[in-house]
Amino acid sequence: MSETIYVGADIGGTTIKIGICNEQGELLHTLEGPTESEKGADAIVNNLVKYAREVVEASSYEWGQVGGVGVGTAGFLDIPNGIIKFSNNLNVRDVPLKKLLEEKLQTIVKVNNDANVAALGEAWAGAGRGIDNCVCYTLGTGVGGGIIINGKIYEGFSGMAGELGHMAIVPDLEAIQCSCGMTGCLETVSSATGIIRMAKDAVERGDRTSLSLVPNIMAKEVIDAAKAGDEVAVRIVNRAAFYLGKSMAAVAIVVNPQRFIIGGGVAKAGDFLFDQIREVFKKYTPEQAKQGVEIVAATLGNNAGVVGAAGLILRSN
Amino acid sequence: MSETIYVGADIGGTTIKIGICNEQGELLHTLEGPTESEKGADAIVNNLVKYAREVVEASSYEWGQVGGVGVGTAGFLDIPNGIIKFSNNLNVRDVPLKKLLEEKLQTIVKVNNDANVAALGEAWAGAGRGIDNCVCYTLGTGVGGGIIINGKIYEGFSGMAGELGHMAIVPDLEAIQCSCGMTGCLETVSSATGIIRMAKDAVERGDRTSLSLVPNIMAKEVIDAAKAGDEVAVRIVNRAAFYLGKSMAAVAIVVNPQRFIIGGGVAKAGDFLFDQIREVFKKYTPEQAKQGVEIVAATLGNNAGVVGAAGLILRSN
Repeated sequence: MSETIYVGADIGGTTIKIGICNEQGELLHTLEGPTESEKGADAIVNNLVKYAREVVEASSYEWGQVGGVGVGTAGFLDIPNGIIKFSNNLNVRDVPLKKLLEEKLQTIVKVNNDANVAALGEAWAGAGRGIDNCVCYTLGTGVGGGIIINGKIYEGFSGMAGELGHMAIVPDLEAIQCSCGMTGCLETVSSATGIIRMAKDAVERGDRTSLSLVPNIMAKEVIDAAKAGDEVAVRIVNRAAFYLGKSMAAVAIVVNPQRFIIGGGVAKAGDFLFDQIREVFKKYTPEQAKQGVEIVAATLGNNAGVVGAAGLILRSN
Repeated sequence: MSETIYVGADIGGTTIKIGICNEQGELLHTLEGPTESEKGADAIVNNLVKYAREVVEASSYEWGQVGGVGVGTAGFLDIPNGIIKFSNNLNVRDVPLKKLLEEKLQTIVKVNNDANVAALGEAWAGAGRGIDNCVCYTLGTGVGGGIIINGKIYEGFSGMAGELGHMAIVPDLEAIQCSCGMTGCLETVSSATGIIRMAKDAVERGDRTSLSLVPNIMAKEVIDAAKAGDEVAVRIVNRAAFYLGKSMAAVAIVVNPQRFIIGGGVAKAGDFLFDQIREVFKKYTPEQAKQGVEIVAATLGNNAGVVGAAGLILRSN
């Protein structure tokens, strides 16, 4: 009996992480190596091919058992055709990744964006295991998102489904401009970047806060200060939580998921953050759309990307 | 060659409309008769059975060609089991409609709520024909909605997907209470009821408006006054349009539909209303999620319910 395995790759600016999963999404083996994006697109592709072969060789499986290779990466993608249209991170443009990898690896390859892939990883084998309909938020530099419908990533008409960081949720009079050009996007207040910005603004305008003593403010310092009762920090975390909760209330009315999963660095704040989000979510969501709906922390950590990438073969269109 | 046909029924408080569609969603034949809800659940079911048989007999088809019967109705439903848990409109409670109809009609029966069914009708055979992913709004007494994903109604975890009227979109300080108990729901400002309320409020507080001369203000009067340049009426219609556009921007980031379809009485305002909605939608939606996305009027009018009900057999889970 030869079990089918799936290879997942998470291409970051400096490192490619790669892993093997079985059909249940269990991560069986991993390795990582340099991306070498400074050497250009060919080097990235060749490295990925090398690591994919290596991770299988280093395991107890054979290449013949590979049911496909999934790849997650940041940037602007043409998902159906598996083309990296443009990636700041990798400094490449118009790379037909799917086609190149399929030629070199002689197996099915699927490519998707890092937020969708992390969402799928959690949905498949992490905090969403067994749940068909869930929505994931990744709170990092930005706010990423992914919509899982009937167990699969849902991409929408032009691949923008689940780009939750760009929901215009902050009312105009309180909104600032987002890196995307719009104003009031969720990620202007609920990402690590947003939290840091609000803290630096507070320090600069002379608000009385323990954060004024911190030389290089990171989101963790703001959350720790809030946990310790610093009023300025509490207000900042409240604001981040408020708009997350409000955005989830909007999501609940659109796709009515059974579970919200929150990952990324900011989610490490734990129940201190989550309880506030839950409270706001409850306030703005009708009874039937919140009954039995949970807001939980992601469980796969940095492995979500590799697991989700492997999951692309079975669980994306 | 015996073509398969589908029977659709739209149960309203006073009238049951019924029709036959072919597999392309073309409405081939219709009839209607009294609901007689005052006689209780049995009478409603028996009437529906009678009209279903009659509409087929009156056509050139035979009962043997019926591939199933779909039913749309207002109220709180258990959709998977086809049970009317509670309906104000019909004054019934706990009616196992699917089971009763399947016994009497000896064919598959599916039941869904009126907003979902109208959305499916438009998506299948109206303004969304040929479009796999669309979102419908029905602007009537309330604001109904329906999410069509891969050509099918999407219901979510507890049947609340697409209940767009209860998106808490109005900021707290400007929000009023909705009939659902929450505050700031879209339907408090963008339904006919919301528009009428805002107009009556304006008249009562003595705002200078031509509406103060209208004895019984309806949404149409407010829209007509706005079209004629009445500033108070313009402000009211602007507000209704603003929150519709904002809610569509949120929807675009969640499910990224190709088309938004707006039906219901208020939609008769036409481009005067639609252009405002489109402008707001564009302002609050990222480029990729609005490119190629259209906001259009529903085309089936009152037939959307019957057509969508017939469509339940082929296009719902």
